[in-house]
Amino acid sequence: MILPDIVPTVLIPVSAVLAIIFGAWLWKRVSAISMTPGQSVFRSQNGREYLLEEEQRGDDEVVQKAADIQEAISEGANSFLFTEYRYMGVFMVIMAVLIFALLGSITPEAGRTRADEVRNGLFSSIAFVLGAATSILSGYVGMKIATYANARTALEARKGIAPAFMCAFRSGAVMGFMLAGFGLLNLFIAIVLFQKAYGDDWKGVFEAITGYGLGGSSIALFGRVGGGIYTKAADVGADLVGKVEKDIPEDDPRNPAVIADNVGDNVGDIAGMGADLFGSFAESTCAALVVAAVSELGTTHNWPAMMFPLMVSATGILVCMLTTLIATDLKPAKQISEIEHTLKMQLIVSTVLMTPVALGLALVSLPETFELPVPSRTQGKEYDYKSVKNWYMFVCVACGLWGGLAIGLQTEYFTSNRYRPVQDVADACRTGPATDIIFGLALGYKSCIIPCFVMAITIYIANSLAGMLGIACAALGMLATLSSGLAIDAYGPISDNAGGIAEMAGMGEDIRERTDALDAAGNTTAAIGKGFAIGSAALVSLALFGAYITRAKIDLLESSILDPKVFAGLLVGAMLPYWFSAMTMKSVGKAALAMVEEVRRQFNTINGLMEGTARPDYSRCVKISTDSSLREMIPPGALVMLSPIIAGALFGTRTLAGMLVGALVSGVQVAVSMSNTGGAWDNAKKYIEAGASEHARELGGKGSDCHKAAVIGDTVGDPLKDTSGPSLNILVKLMAVESLVFAPFFVNIAGGEGLIFQFFSSS
Amino acid sequence: MILPDIVPTVLIPVSAVLAIIFGAWLWKRVSAISMTPGQSVFRSQNGREYLLEEEQRGDDEVVQKAADIQEAISEGANSFLFTEYRYMGVFMVIMAVLIFALLGSITPEAGRTRADEVRNGLFSSIAFVLGAATSILSGYVGMKIATYANARTALEARKGIAPAFMCAFRSGAVMGFMLAGFGLLNLFIAIVLFQKAYGDDWKGVFEAITGYGLGGSSIALFGRVGGGIYTKAADVGADLVGKVEKDIPEDDPRNPAVIADNVGDNVGDIAGMGADLFGSFAESTCAALVVAAVSELGTTHNWPAMMFPLMVSATGILVCMLTTLIATDLKPAKQISEIEHTLKMQLIVSTVLMTPVALGLALVSLPETFELPVPSRTQGKEYDYKSVKNWYMFVCVACGLWGGLAIGLQTEYFTSNRYRPVQDVADACRTGPATDIIFGLALGYKSCIIPCFVMAITIYIANSLAGMLGIACAALGMLATLSSGLAIDAYGPISDNAGGIAEMAGMGEDIRERTDALDAAGNTTAAIGKGFAIGSAALVSLALFGAYITRAKIDLLESSILDPKVFAGLLVGAMLPYWFSAMTMKSVGKAALAMVEEVRRQFNTINGLMEGTARPDYSRCVKISTDSSLREMIPPGALVMLSPIIAGALFGTRTLAGMLVGALVSGVQVAVSMSNTGGAWDNAKKYIEAGASEHARELGGKGSDCHKAAVIGDTVGDPLKDTSGPSLNILVKLMAVESLVFAPFFVNIAGGEGLIFQFFSSS
Repeated sequence: MILPDIVPTVLIPVSAVLAIIFGAWLWKRVSAISMTPGQSVFRSQNGREYLLEEEQRGDDEVVQKAADIQEAISEGANSFLFTEYRYMGVFMVIMAVLIFALLGSITPEAGRTRADEVRNGLFSSIAFVLGAATSILSGYVGMKIATYANARTALEARKGIAPAFMCAFRSGAVMGFMLAGFGLLNLFIAIVLFQKAYGDDWKGVFEAITGYGLGGSSIALFGRVGGGIYTKAADVGADLVGKVEKDIPEDDPRNPAVIADNVGDNVGDIAGMGADLFGSFAESTCAALVVAAVSELGTTHNWPAMMFPLMVSATGILVCMLTTLIATDLKPAKQISEIEHTLKMQLIVSTVLMTPVALGLALVSLPETFELPVPSRTQGKEYDYKSVKNWYMFVCVACGLWGGLAIGLQTEYFTSNRYRPVQDVADACRTGPATDIIFGLALGYKSCIIPCFVMAITIYIANSLAGMLGIACAALGMLATLSSGLAIDAYGPISDNAGGIAEMAGMGEDIRERTDALDAAGNTTAAIGKGFAIGSAALVSLALFGAYITRAKIDLLESSILDPKVFAGLLVGAMLPYWFSAMTMKSVGKAALAMVEEVRRQFNTINGLMEGTARPDYSRCVKISTDSSLREMIPPGALVMLSPIIAGALFGTRTLAGMLVGALVSGVQVAVSMSNTGGAWDNAKKYIEAGASEHARELGGKGSDCHKAAVIGDTVGDPLKDTSGPSLNILVKLMAVESLVFAPFFVNIAGGEGLIFQFFSSS
Repeated sequence: MILPDIVPTVLIPVSAVLAIIFGAWLWKRVSAISMTPGQSVFRSQNGREYLLEEEQRGDDEVVQKAADIQEAISEGANSFLFTEYRYMGVFMVIMAVLIFALLGSITPEAGRTRADEVRNGLFSSIAFVLGAATSILSGYVGMKIATYANARTALEARKGIAPAFMCAFRSGAVMGFMLAGFGLLNLFIAIVLFQKAYGDDWKGVFEAITGYGLGGSSIALFGRVGGGIYTKAADVGADLVGKVEKDIPEDDPRNPAVIADNVGDNVGDIAGMGADLFGSFAESTCAALVVAAVSELGTTHNWPAMMFPLMVSATGILVCMLTTLIATDLKPAKQISEIEHTLKMQLIVSTVLMTPVALGLALVSLPETFELPVPSRTQGKEYDYKSVKNWYMFVCVACGLWGGLAIGLQTEYFTSNRYRPVQDVADACRTGPATDIIFGLALGYKSCIIPCFVMAITIYIANSLAGMLGIACAALGMLATLSSGLAIDAYGPISDNAGGIAEMAGMGEDIRERTDALDAAGNTTAAIGKGFAIGSAALVSLALFGAYITRAKIDLLESSILDPKVFAGLLVGAMLPYWFSAMTMKSVGKAALAMVEEVRRQFNTINGLMEGTARPDYSRCVKISTDSSLREMIPPGALVMLSPIIAGALFGTRTLAGMLVGALVSGVQVAVSMSNTGGAWDNAKKYIEAGASEHARELGGKGSDCHKAAVIGDTVGDPLKDTSGPSLNILVKLMAVESLVFAPFFVNIAGGEGLIFQFFSSS
């Protein structure tokens, strides 16, 4: 059974618009929490909360303070993002021109004209700008709602854990749905408009559309790297002077870097993460489309079948809406112990619901069997054709969907302090920071095992069933529950910020305890989110790599691991994540040292700061973080952007192919181990602080030697889990999509052999 | 020009025997230093030394004490090694039977009989046992000379820096030459004897000979992992209680774990390192031979040309003898500042001298051009033939030789405290242990860049010129200066031990300062040695992989990175170094905790221990280290030994091929970064302690906060640089050689497709 063409044409944009409306509606519900002093109306539901409400009622000063802090954080985030956007704007213009120039100038092959090449350059360029703009928009909206909700969450925490959780979760969901909606809508509009210009040349349309993925991912690079350096420079800088030297608590308003630290959560973990996952979504869709375009689906102009990848995302949005309503209205979390469970259930429920939907979609939108070109096993021939059944595609999507869940749940096991691994790390603090760090590193290494097997199985199945189209669909499956994933992900930094605001506004120990509990759950969900991000990045990157291989006209023989060029590429590619991490970690270190100096200077020169009678100069710290993170993001950004171009142009398409695979298989390990190590150290510290069990209390609690050791581990983990680790996703994806976009250019110069090798072989 | 057959037949065994004699002669010179109290005769050469001699003359008590400590260390090392040998013995028997059974039982192909297979199984088994026995012998000899020389070095330090350096260096050279000699001699004898049994079937001979490499590497696995866990459990355990809790200096005789710590240097850094490099030598020679055997060199029974790889090693020994004489007799180091230079010159001089020798060898022993089979680009055909010129082989050897030097020198740059990188890490200690660790990790990551490019270039050139034979010869080139490399490498732990003995025997601050200077140079040379070890391991592993591909009958098409099986293998393979490191680091952690408890127990229960009036129970600590390291080496050992067998038998030869390459490209990065990070932390600590420059003194010296931060970094680095990092070499090599040996078995079952895949495709 085949759907009429009208169904995808309606379903996709309507779902996208619904997502945006749903996001707006959630935002409206969050905005019901008043931030104007004297107007706070509390609707409590039980005695305990009523009591607290009584205590706090009329506490106008606290509300005013929270509003002020929120204002400061929001301003800082705005100022960082707008400065960053200026850099991005310049980059976008250069890159758009470069894409147009390089692609437009290549020598047309037989059957193609100069006009074809120019058109391809132009539309690739337009798609790039559109993808970049959508990414910027999504990140900006995320930052806006996060800085809108953080103080509200803190204020709600006065009423109880349930309303605070609800506020943070709803705000996270705003970001999740808006991002998914904008991403899908703009992509769909671009496809429809491009088709007007290209007419019947579907292959041309979808090759140009890959620019959308490149745009999304380029912005994600700056978002992740710049935001990651920002957030950790501020965090590490604040901690090193505040916690270590001055012995004042985290988020203490006397610390001049405290606002910058909170700004960092919004620009790094919210805007950066959003851009990252938007990039994955855009790229996996583009990869699926570009492969499908040359299959029977594209050549027979089967519109509903071509739109299968987008329909997976569209129905995913609808499923996630339903899932979100469960958490917000049907069965909201009421106690601390229920928070992690509720968040985890979001993932599980959306995965379960999505499975039959994906099956149905595959059966109704795809032809029963269709021919898919796969790299030929015969020399000189470009393709063999493989017969694919429609339910194969369901299996691919389901592999991604459930693989993502498996990676998420194992990440939870390794980073939540309710399980043994983190408790063992906490236990190792007894013998000091060195053993804490050794055990934490070992935990991160160990946590690579299951994700790798899951990905290997997914890739094997998807690739065997439907080649690179299968892998792209597996990536889309993993991202089908994107809105829910992003919601629980964005929930983390919002809670973190709420905790900071509660502390700074002087809301008292009991409120702070509640926000801490929200935050601890947020740490784990952040790690889960990072697991999803890297898992999907790996699949996306492989799918893009497959598309690159086709576009670069590399045959199976030439991509053998025995080929000297391929192997050399593999080795160098496997090294790139290390080079990149060395850069980003050093960047965080340098930016943090600049922050440390400024904080020390303020403590030394501002009289009464330590006593709390004078106000620190927060904005100077915000400026230092902004300036140094933007300066420091250039070298790692250049490494990622230039490596594929240099490899492809100078050393040829095969070396580049090896490099992409090397970076992928090595980058996955580094990213997973860094994220989980960092998450585990953070939660080991929280475990000791919270003292929720017999064992935890034995370790001595806050201020003990164990705790000091754990703080050191946490500080080491900060750049690992929030800068270097997550940025590697982008490295892996961006190099692949860039190679895909520029493949014709590489083939055009030196016949794909690379200028250097051509020089040697001709001389 | 072609050499007469007699030349290699004489040159190889004579060089090997000369190496053993040279080693024995050096040993004799070391033994001139008397350890009998009352008989110490000092021949001083200048006033200063004479003065010191006066002070110390007749200090019989010190000599007696040093002798006692030496005795205790030697006994501990002996007891550990013999217990370890029991485990190895059991393993060897099982493995020998397994090799015989699996290889002897495979279904003979066309043209081969059951007797051929049985013979192959039998001789592979014999070669395995011989390789293992040689490895054990080499490690044992190394341990013997090291425990013989440590106290003598300490006693010589009373006379001055020059005689102490000479003693340590000569003893290191004993190990270097004896190991190279035994390794080469036994391999040559095995080849000659096997030829008697095989007659004209040279291919058969050299396929069976691969067992020698497997034997060498299997023992290296236990030596590196067991020894590595031993040494770091003792070291970390001793430091955690001694330095951190009790605030007593390193190597203080009151610390019950101090003897175990010194034993560890001998069983880990000496015996383990020796077995590792012997394994590299054995495997690269075997890889070269097995590839050459099917080339024109083997099929035309060109004996001198076949023996080219062994002649490279043989002449390498002679070159290294000459180089060693420069350091010991012609231009010995006289001052502290000259030590590092002298050691570095060993590498540079031997490389320079070896280059024309290798050129000469290639020109006289190889035919001007010869045909080499390389994987065919035509489907269904096993080989294409490639014409190789004799000077190509020289280029391959030279690439390895100079590539090794480049890796060595860059390692020195990143780990010696005379250069910026380590000084930056020391500087980061100002802001505490967290920044120390962040900067150290970043340094390690960064240090992967150059070795990777060097290896990629070497591999590209060697592979392009002469396929996998070229890569094997590049590995041999890197190992041509093995004797010198091992000498400067073994020098390190001997000096380290000498320092310990000087402290324990109460030789005074000035003596300790000299041994510290020797030791600091030793730290750097140890890192250089690790650089060589991993560089050669990577090349060896790739050469073995090439031989495996041939033997497993995998063609170019089937080894494409686009193949789902290959890719899944790549991803899982890239994860294995992480899994393995997680195991070994956890093992060190657990063993160290056991040690900590014992040391604490002794401090708490033995009265007068802290005051120095009671003697600690050293032997209990030695026993704890022995027991726990042997117990803990089983799981990582099993991972390495079983992974290729499981992958090959269940998932097929292509998945295994991917896995080997994945483990290789990812393992190199992990090993290099771990070794260099650890070395840098150690030397950053020493930099702060020594206070040799303005900048270093600013950091506060021993006991300052900076120093405490540096000690934490050093402790974290211990398992990285001495257990996990170096063990990864073995993982990379051993999996490759094991796959090579068992390749016919994998092909025999399920047609190389793997039992699981066969099951699914047939059902």
